[in-house]
Amino acid sequence: MRNMSMDVSAERVTLAEIADEAGVSLSTISKVLNGRSDVSPGTRSRVEALLQRSGYVRRGAGRSETHADLIELVFHELDAIWSMELIGGVESVAKEHGLSVVLTVSGSRHAPGPDWIDGVIRRRPVGVVLVFSELAPEYREQLRTRSIPFVIIDPAGDPSPEVPSVGSANWSGGLAATRHLIELGHRRIAAITGPDDMMCSLARIDGYRSAMNSAGLPIDPAWIRFGDFHVTGGRDHASGLLALPAGERPTAIFAGSDLQALGVMDAARAAGLSVPDELSIVGYDDVPISRWMNPPLTTVHQPLRRMGEEAVRLALRLAAEPHDHPAPTPRMDLATHLVVRASTAAPVG
Amino acid sequence: MRNMSMDVSAERVTLAEIADEAGVSLSTISKVLNGRSDVSPGTRSRVEALLQRSGYVRRGAGRSETHADLIELVFHELDAIWSMELIGGVESVAKEHGLSVVLTVSGSRHAPGPDWIDGVIRRRPVGVVLVFSELAPEYREQLRTRSIPFVIIDPAGDPSPEVPSVGSANWSGGLAATRHLIELGHRRIAAITGPDDMMCSLARIDGYRSAMNSAGLPIDPAWIRFGDFHVTGGRDHASGLLALPAGERPTAIFAGSDLQALGVMDAARAAGLSVPDELSIVGYDDVPISRWMNPPLTTVHQPLRRMGEEAVRLALRLAAEPHDHPAPTPRMDLATHLVVRASTAAPVG
Repeated sequence: MRNMSMDVSAERVTLAEIADEAGVSLSTISKVLNGRSDVSPGTRSRVEALLQRSGYVRRGAGRSETHADLIELVFHELDAIWSMELIGGVESVAKEHGLSVVLTVSGSRHAPGPDWIDGVIRRRPVGVVLVFSELAPEYREQLRTRSIPFVIIDPAGDPSPEVPSVGSANWSGGLAATRHLIELGHRRIAAITGPDDMMCSLARIDGYRSAMNSAGLPIDPAWIRFGDFHVTGGRDHASGLLALPAGERPTAIFAGSDLQALGVMDAARAAGLSVPDELSIVGYDDVPISRWMNPPLTTVHQPLRRMGEEAVRLALRLAAEPHDHPAPTPRMDLATHLVVRASTAAPVG
Repeated sequence: MRNMSMDVSAERVTLAEIADEAGVSLSTISKVLNGRSDVSPGTRSRVEALLQRSGYVRRGAGRSETHADLIELVFHELDAIWSMELIGGVESVAKEHGLSVVLTVSGSRHAPGPDWIDGVIRRRPVGVVLVFSELAPEYREQLRTRSIPFVIIDPAGDPSPEVPSVGSANWSGGLAATRHLIELGHRRIAAITGPDDMMCSLARIDGYRSAMNSAGLPIDPAWIRFGDFHVTGGRDHASGLLALPAGERPTAIFAGSDLQALGVMDAARAAGLSVPDELSIVGYDDVPISRWMNPPLTTVHQPLRRMGEEAVRLALRLAAEPHDHPAPTPRMDLATHLVVRASTAAPVG
C-alpha cells in the first residue's frame, strides 16, 4: 500500500497546473478525477484530455481506508456454465486479499458502456478484470490516469500489445484434441470453433490444421466451421456436417466448447448416429457438466478457474508496481490438457 | 432518493447523545457508522450496542453522489448452473437502476463472516440480497442502523418472520411433478430432495406426499431421500433406490434439482435401465442445460432469473420506504410450473 501523504505535494503541483490550463478550479479537477457527475461534459472531457496529455498519474490509488476494496469483473455475457468457473476463481483470490468483486455484464464484446467507466472511476477499484472484452483506448487512458490496472482474460481477437492478459494454450489444445482423434484412426475430422474474430478460435483451428497436416491428412474446407460457443450453434453446424455425402462426412468432430459439443451430440441423435461408435466428439473447456453428459465428454481442459485466479493476482501485482517504471506488459497462457472420456473411439469399418 | 441535509440536525443530536453515553468523540461514532477499522474493537462494540439500544437509524443511506451505487449479492456457494440464472436476474435489474453488483461467496449457508459485514458497512450499498443464506441477528441490526435493507432468496430452513424474502412455490412444484408421474400410471414413485433443514426441500416433499396421498398411493419410507442438490448426491441416492427389491423399486424418481436428475440418469445407465421406459425422471429448476440432457429432462420450472430480479426490486422498495413506518415484512413466492420433456413416460408392464 503506497503512502498517500508522501506524494500529495507533487500531486498538487501537477493538478494546479492542469487547473490553470483548463481554466477551472482545483476542486473541479478532483471532481473529474473522482468521477463525480456534477461537472459539465465539456469541462470534463477538456480536463480528461489535459490529464492524459500531461501524463498525470494519480498516486495512492488502490487499497486505502477511505475506499471500498473492490475489484471489477466484466463479462460481455453470462454463459450458463463457462462463466461460473471464472467467477469462482476471481472470487476466491479476491477474498484471499480482502477484496470484494463487482460484477458487470456489458452485453457487448467490445468494451462496456460509458456508465460503466464512470462507476469504476467513482468506485476506484484496486483493479479491473475483463472477460472476452476489449477496452476502448479512452477508457484505458482514464484507468491509467487513476492508476487502476486492468487485465483481460482470453482476449477476443488480437489484443493490442500493451494489454496485460491471461489466456490458455488454445493452439496446443486444438492440436491435442485432433491428435487424439487421429491416433484413434480417424481421417475425416471436422472442427467447429468460435467466432473468427476471436484469437482463441483461430488458435484452436490452427492447432487442428497442424495436427492434420503433420499426419498428412487432407482437410475438406467444408469441415471447418466458425460459429458461436453455444449449444444451438454446435447443433446446427453439426447437422450440416452430418448431412455431407458419405465419403465426405466426418467420423469425428472437434467442438470449440463443451456446450457446442452438447449440441453436436444432439445433432448426432437426430441423425440416428451413436456416439462414439458412429461419431466421435471432443469438446473444449472441461466444464463440470461435461463428465455427466451421455456419453461423458472427451474434452480439452481449459483452466478457467485458474485463469480467473491468475488474472486477479496479475491485477494486484500491477497495482503494486511503481507507475514510473512500468514493467513489460505481462502475458500468460496457462496450459491446457486433454481429458479422455467416453465420447471418442476408433471409427467403425 | 432522500434529501440528506434535511435530516442532519436530527441526526447530530442523536449521535451526540450516543457519543456522550459511550464517552467517545462524535468522529469515533461516525467512524463506527462508516465501518472504518481505526476504532478499537471494545469501543466499536460498545458504540454498536448503544446505536442499537437507542434505535438510531441513519438517514439518507443508499443512493448518494458520495457513495458507489452498489447492491450486495451473497451466495453460500457458486453452483455450476443454478447460480448463473440468479446472478443474471440480479445483474439485469441492478443495471436498470444504475447499480453495480458486489458478489460474495460466503462458503457457509449460515451467514457470511465478520469481514463481510465490515465491508458492506464501508461500502454502504443500496441493499443486500442473500441466496440460500441466513443473516446473523447482530448483522441485521448493523444493517438496520445503517438503513441498508436486505432480502433473502429462497430461505434455507424457516426464516424468522421479520426477514423479507423471495421464494418460489416449492410445495406446488412437488405436487405438480408427482401428479404428472401418477397420471402417467406410476404407483411406486420415489423422491430425492435437498437438505432436510431447507424449507424448500420440506415443501417439495410435502407436495409429493400430498399428491401420493390424494391419489391413495402408499409411500414406502425408503422412497424419500434427503441429500444435497448436486449430481453425485442424486446419483448415490438413486443407486440405493434402484437397488431395492423388484416389488419395492420405484418406477419413477422425482429429483430435487436438475443436477440431481443428471445424477439419477447416470445411476439408471449404471443399472442398465433405459430412461424413460424403465425409469421416469422429473427434475427441478429447469436450468438451461436440462433441455439438452439425454433424454431431455421433464422438470419443474423454477423462475430463478425472475427471483433474482424481484429480490433486487424488493430491496430497492425497502430502501425507499420511510424507516419510521415499516411496512409489514414483504414475502413473495413466484409461481412454478411443470415442463414436460422426454424423461417421463408410462411405466412398462
